[in-house]
Amino acid sequence: MSRIVYVNGAFVPEEDAKISVFDRGFLFADGVYEVSSVLDGKLVDNAGHMVRLHRSLNELDMAAPCSDEEIEAAQIKLIQDNHVVEGLVYLQVTRGAADRDFAYPKNVKPTLVMFTQSKPLLNDPTADNGISVVTLPDLRWGRRDIKTVGLLYPCMAKMEAKAKGANDAWLMDDNGFITEGTSNNAYIVTKDGIIVTRQLSNDILHGITRKAVLTIAKKANLKIEERPFTPAEVQNAQEAFFTSASAFVMPVVKIDGQDIANGKPGRITQQLREMYIKIAQNG
Amino acid sequence: MSRIVYVNGAFVPEEDAKISVFDRGFLFADGVYEVSSVLDGKLVDNAGHMVRLHRSLNELDMAAPCSDEEIEAAQIKLIQDNHVVEGLVYLQVTRGAADRDFAYPKNVKPTLVMFTQSKPLLNDPTADNGISVVTLPDLRWGRRDIKTVGLLYPCMAKMEAKAKGANDAWLMDDNGFITEGTSNNAYIVTKDGIIVTRQLSNDILHGITRKAVLTIAKKANLKIEERPFTPAEVQNAQEAFFTSASAFVMPVVKIDGQDIANGKPGRITQQLREMYIKIAQNG
Repeated sequence: MSRIVYVNGAFVPEEDAKISVFDRGFLFADGVYEVSSVLDGKLVDNAGHMVRLHRSLNELDMAAPCSDEEIEAAQIKLIQDNHVVEGLVYLQVTRGAADRDFAYPKNVKPTLVMFTQSKPLLNDPTADNGISVVTLPDLRWGRRDIKTVGLLYPCMAKMEAKAKGANDAWLMDDNGFITEGTSNNAYIVTKDGIIVTRQLSNDILHGITRKAVLTIAKKANLKIEERPFTPAEVQNAQEAFFTSASAFVMPVVKIDGQDIANGKPGRITQQLREMYIKIAQNG
Repeated sequence: MSRIVYVNGAFVPEEDAKISVFDRGFLFADGVYEVSSVLDGKLVDNAGHMVRLHRSLNELDMAAPCSDEEIEAAQIKLIQDNHVVEGLVYLQVTRGAADRDFAYPKNVKPTLVMFTQSKPLLNDPTADNGISVVTLPDLRWGRRDIKTVGLLYPCMAKMEAKAKGANDAWLMDDNGFITEGTSNNAYIVTKDGIIVTRQLSNDILHGITRKAVLTIAKKANLKIEERPFTPAEVQNAQEAFFTSASAFVMPVVKIDGQDIANGKPGRITQQLREMYIKIAQNG
């Protein structure tokens, strides 16, 4: 069955969900996006995603396509029309369609596109086994804090990781420190039980799930250090994991072919995953 | 009058020129492009652009949408249908449309989009007066040799340059050397008459016009040094210019608010422009 997709105010079958070839999202990657998870048919932490959407729009002098209330009403209608119980709602705003010119066009209506993907999030077997990562140089642009659709390098890195037999890549800056995963934030738990994750800056995405998980960790009296860490620290860590809106908290059990600790998901990782899901389910 | 635009084998009015919202060019900037100039109704150096297109596709493990002959036949038809005497033909290839996933999809047909823009190229008053540039940090990704549609930072830099009262930005790497302009290659002519432009690497686009102009300069017995140069060297230069497929050779007369030499287009720049145009017109 075909999904219903939202395009600029219309709800249409996915085969008919089209945009102009002059859309600046297509010609210049001049667009931003958000992905909100759906659990039990309900949006998870959607307010946080809307706040970040506005931050991205502001950084790019891009207008909002409509009010937040209109966006959320369309998200909810898509969840209902597509009978999504577990999965996600993707939304993308671009500067709109105009004849091709690097300079931003004036008086152009932003494009808003949304669609859903149904997929199991709670009973994901990956959470039981963990994933393997390889380190690759972080060749992305210098404003990773803006959630744009300029995602080609993360795609390339994901493919290179798969070619090397791993599930994903953790990206490394010029100084040999890990920035984050291809589409997620990266963490270790040291042998002293300290959760380490890179501090917010233009180098990484300001993860909505990152924020929620750090809040949960603080409430659970876990120690947190926000600082860069190296692949060697990952190899010597007690646990490693990543967070993202659609994977929640996910164990990382191997890096560059070497097991992390005993090669199994860690206790604190599992604890954080359970606590995050509990809060997500209860809104 | 509406242009005729090419989309995946069809020639359609621009209002009907649409692609799927699931196109990876739209969702991931997973696409590459080329711009060929048109003079006297004929394509300029199109073979060079096709060679570079294949290089970009190869670097991204992306399939060609059809044969080069089919692409060129469509380019020529667009030029004729849209009565383009002077201007350009833009072409974009993306990996195609598939449900959103960072990993490359299998068995997906690449998307091919082409359109024309009519604009005066030979009698561009900019060539008589030159342009002003400001230096900005080069925050683009690490594979600028691949001509992808991930062009948001060049757009942002162009807007920042305009906000500072300049026409364009010359981008600077972390070591304080200029890489190139937002959509063109950068050159100076030293007081000793040596043409200096950055050597080819992943740091800059491998300009088709760059290649042609350096060949012309060599034939004219001009001295060339391919190496990085600094903004200070630009300020002390005798001349400065940039090259691109649609601007050919264009004088740069001011950098960061300071005149270069006497603030007028230089002799060697004008000579190279005239020689390039003569060759372009004669195929």
